[in-house]
Parts: sequence; structure tokens; C-alpha cells
Amino acid sequence: MQFPKKAEIIEVGPRDGLQNEPGPITVEQKKELIRRLADTGLSRMETASFVNPKWVPQMADAEEIAAWCNHLGITWIALTPNVKAVERAIAAKAPQIAVFVGASTAFNKKNINKSTEESLQECKQIFETAKSQGIFVRAYISMAFSCPYQGKVTFEEVERVCRSFVDLGADEIDVADTNGFANPKQVYERFSRLRELFPEAVFVGHFHDTRKMALANTLAAMQAGVEKFDSSIGGLGGCPFSPGATGNLATEDLLLMLNEMGIDTGVSLDNLLEHVPFAKSLSAGWNG
Amino acid sequence: MQFPKKAEIIEVGPRDGLQNEPGPITVEQKKELIRRLADTGLSRMETASFVNPKWVPQMADAEEIAAWCNHLGITWIALTPNVKAVERAIAAKAPQIAVFVGASTAFNKKNINKSTEESLQECKQIFETAKSQGIFVRAYISMAFSCPYQGKVTFEEVERVCRSFVDLGADEIDVADTNGFANPKQVYERFSRLRELFPEAVFVGHFHDTRKMALANTLAAMQAGVEKFDSSIGGLGGCPFSPGATGNLATEDLLLMLNEMGIDTGVSLDNLLEHVPFAKSLSAGWNG
Repeated sequence: MQFPKKAEIIEVGPRDGLQNEPGPITVEQKKELIRRLADTGLSRMETASFVNPKWVPQMADAEEIAAWCNHLGITWIALTPNVKAVERAIAAKAPQIAVFVGASTAFNKKNINKSTEESLQECKQIFETAKSQGIFVRAYISMAFSCPYQGKVTFEEVERVCRSFVDLGADEIDVADTNGFANPKQVYERFSRLRELFPEAVFVGHFHDTRKMALANTLAAMQAGVEKFDSSIGGLGGCPFSPGATGNLATEDLLLMLNEMGIDTGVSLDNLLEHVPFAKSLSAGWNG
Repeated sequence: MQFPKKAEIIEVGPRDGLQNEPGPITVEQKKELIRRLADTGLSRMETASFVNPKWVPQMADAEEIAAWCNHLGITWIALTPNVKAVERAIAAKAPQIAVFVGASTAFNKKNINKSTEESLQECKQIFETAKSQGIFVRAYISMAFSCPYQGKVTFEEVERVCRSFVDLGADEIDVADTNGFANPKQVYERFSRLRELFPEAVFVGHFHDTRKMALANTLAAMQAGVEKFDSSIGGLGGCPFSPGATGNLATEDLLLMLNEMGIDTGVSLDNLLEHVPFAKSLSAGWNG
């Protein structure tokens, strides 16, 4: 086994973590969370979603959060599911955006009522709009290992979405175990094949700890050469449209493992641990 | 990464799991647990400790449990910390015994009030007594990665105990992360070096999930060629003399990962999951 000397942790708590919370979370609480996270050395994070508030009410304050992130000077990522959202993100001066397409058609249909091809078609416009402004694009392949609606997800389904993202000029490709069903063997094999097929692409691993395999999956991804990982403080989050998709990998668990392995992230574990109780206090606790 | 086709799970719940429970557990409850575990296909398990009941009252019924295990026809392992215990185990027709020595002198002093050398000296008599009866000997290196009393444990400390066990003729050597502080890099490196130094020895990985790294550590050990792992149904157990040593790796978590990776164990996950609530009902829950 070989281990990287450095790894990047991308914090997704303020967006992916909080978006499904049933209770009210004030914009002040969110700002406080982001400020605390920035304080730990986490230099890149997903903080806002420019999705229609009709669908995700927790993200209705995206513009105010955007202004706060720019004020703090952090590299924040805006989730932009459609062209309208990108236009809002551009107006809010987002340095980076994120798009997602499920590897499984069943998921895309249920989640955004589009086929995978239709989703990729819409991505084309999103990429063009963002790229014309020099904005960094993170592209998620959701349900890249398994799907709650169709079960098994083939490698070919993942490859198809990945190829489209590469062709569109994605700056990084985030391969997500959205429902937490991946195992280390599958993670190692999928990332190894993707890196062979797309040697120039930058990959990110996004694991959920639903079945306690998130750290083992992280280790397996590292063996396939992946050095960037998403996680969420306190393990906040999941996916509102995916049954059983609770339990993002907790940033503190990931950071502890990387620290103990001597892998540098630039993030302070002591600082982070101080802020975990605050992060958890924002959650109704249903995400375990 | 390469993965084995088969792995062995050694269940330690009835012994390591229950020995620290503060509440009363009847001999009938223990028998029921062992019967249920045997029913899942777990063919080898630690079920009794012939330690002085003054120290571990939960194990006072060792002889009755022994008779039950022999009646069920399972390969059970008796913990035997001294020569007197081995003699009781022999009288109870134990097919296998287990001994343990801490890699750290600080642990041995606190745990059994002996230096590592004194512990190894006592082991000599235990091995001789057991071997003269053709009994299989499992030898634990406790605190093989870290120690709550002395902190860091060097590889040389582990190697010294391992060499003694090999010289004494141990049938398997169980390298234990007794306080749950090991990380995957350390696990990979220690097992790789041990297998290089002692190519004929059979090694077992014993991990605690205290810091959520037990499955990642299992994966790392497999990369170093280890194919035998201890675990405890429901995650029962810890170590009474080791602060913070709670949280044995749960058998159901280990089995799920191995199953998903296509690694055969001969154990039925469906059967096992049926029995987890019963196992947990025996615990006061302090072990998380």
C-alpha cells in the first residue's frame, strides 16, 4: 500500500449537510457555522445551493450566504442544478459551482424528473455559462455505486456520465456513493478504471457512512490514487430524495484518520472538534 | 489492491464481549447466545474464560459453558491467563486456548501486575501444558499499536512478544488493537513486517471500532496478507482494565463488508442480523 503525503478535505456540511434539515435554521446560524469551519483551516466548502427554494427551503438564503462567504474570503462552492441557478451564482460572485447527474436513470427520473441524457444536455448549458465566466466546475456523478431505485449501477453507466463531464471540461469529478452502499473493492476498482480511462481528470471521493464503510472506502480510493475527499462536520446530511441516504462521512472522523496516517490536510483537528457540538446542535438528529 | 477469496471470522462476543458487563447475565442467556451464534455458521468462537472469578465474575460459569459448547460440537476457545486456568480448560475438554501478553510493559503491569518478561515466562508453562495435550494455542499480543498507559508502542516491543510466541509454538498470533487507536497505515506496516519476519506464523487481526477505523484497519490488514479477523456480535465488549477500550468491531459490520466484497466466510448475514438484538439485550449499553 502507498499513501499520499497530502490530501484535500472539501467540507460539504453547510450545503449538503443542512439542506435536508426539517427544522428552521437561521441565516445567522449558517453564517456562524461557515465562520467556524473556515477557522479550522478548511479552505474549500460547499455553502449554498441556488436550487429553487420551493424544492429546498433551507437554501432560500443563498444570496446572503454567498455575500458572507465572499466577505470571509473562502473558496466556496454553489450547487447549481440548472442554468437559472448558475446565473444566480454568477450574480452572487461564486468562485466555484457544482452540478450533479445520477449514474442511474432511475435516480435522475425520481430526483429531477429527467433521463440521464436530458440531465447531461442541461449540464452542457450550465458548463458553458460557468466557463464563459471562468468559474471552476465540480461535477458530481451521483449514485455511482448503487441506486435505491434500480439497485445495481454498472460501471458503464458511471463511465458514460464521466465521459460527458470530461468532454464538457469539468475541473473535478466527484464520484459519489450517495446512498452509502459502496464497498472498498468496488471503490478501488471503479476509481482505478476511471483514472485509467481519464488520466487527466481530477477525481474526488464522496462517501456516506451509512454502513460504516466510509473510512474503508476512503482508504480504497486512496489506493486508486484519489487524494480529495468530501465530508461533513458532525456527519450532517444525506439526500432528501434518496431513501436511506443518511450519514455523510463526518469530517472529524476523516481528519482523525488522515492525521494518524501522517497525511497532511492543513486542517486543525483540535479546532474542528471544538465546533462539532455546534454543528450537531443545528440538526434535528434524524441523520444519526 | 488484492483481496482474499475467503476469510475467517472468529467470534469473541460470548467471552471478550460479555466479560465486562456490569449486570448479571445468566448461564442460560449465555448458552442461548452461543447456540444462536453457532446457528449462523460461525464455526469458531471464544466462549469462556478460566480466569479467577474474583477478577472477572461474569466468567464464573466457565465449566458449564464448556460443557454446552462441547454438546453443540463447536470449536470453542478458552481464555487461560495462567497454568491453573489451562488445567481447568483441559479438564473441561477445551479444543483451543488463548493466552495474552501486552506488547507494552506498562499494560502488563497494570493488567496482571507482571513485566512483559514475567508474562512471557508464565506463558512458557501454559504452552507446555496445552501442547502436551495437543491443544491449539491462540496467542494474543495485546496493545500492539498503542497503550493507554505508555502511549506509543514500538514495533520492537511487538516483535519481541511475537518472537516468543513463535518460539513457544503458537498456532496463531492475534495482533490486537486493544484500545482502538490503530490507523490503517500502521496496521499495514506492522502486519507486513511481522509476516516478513515470521513467514510461517498465522496472524489474526483484532480491531476495536472506538474511532471508527476498524473496517479500514481490516482492509489494511488484508493488504498485508491477513485473512483471519476477530469480531463481536453487536459490537459487545472492551477491556475492563483499559480505559476507553470499548467497542469491539461488530461481527455484522465486518461480515457485511466481506460479503459485499465477495469474500466468503461461510457465515449467514441474515441469520446473524436476526440475533443482534438478542446479543445487545444482554448488554447494559455502556459499550456503545
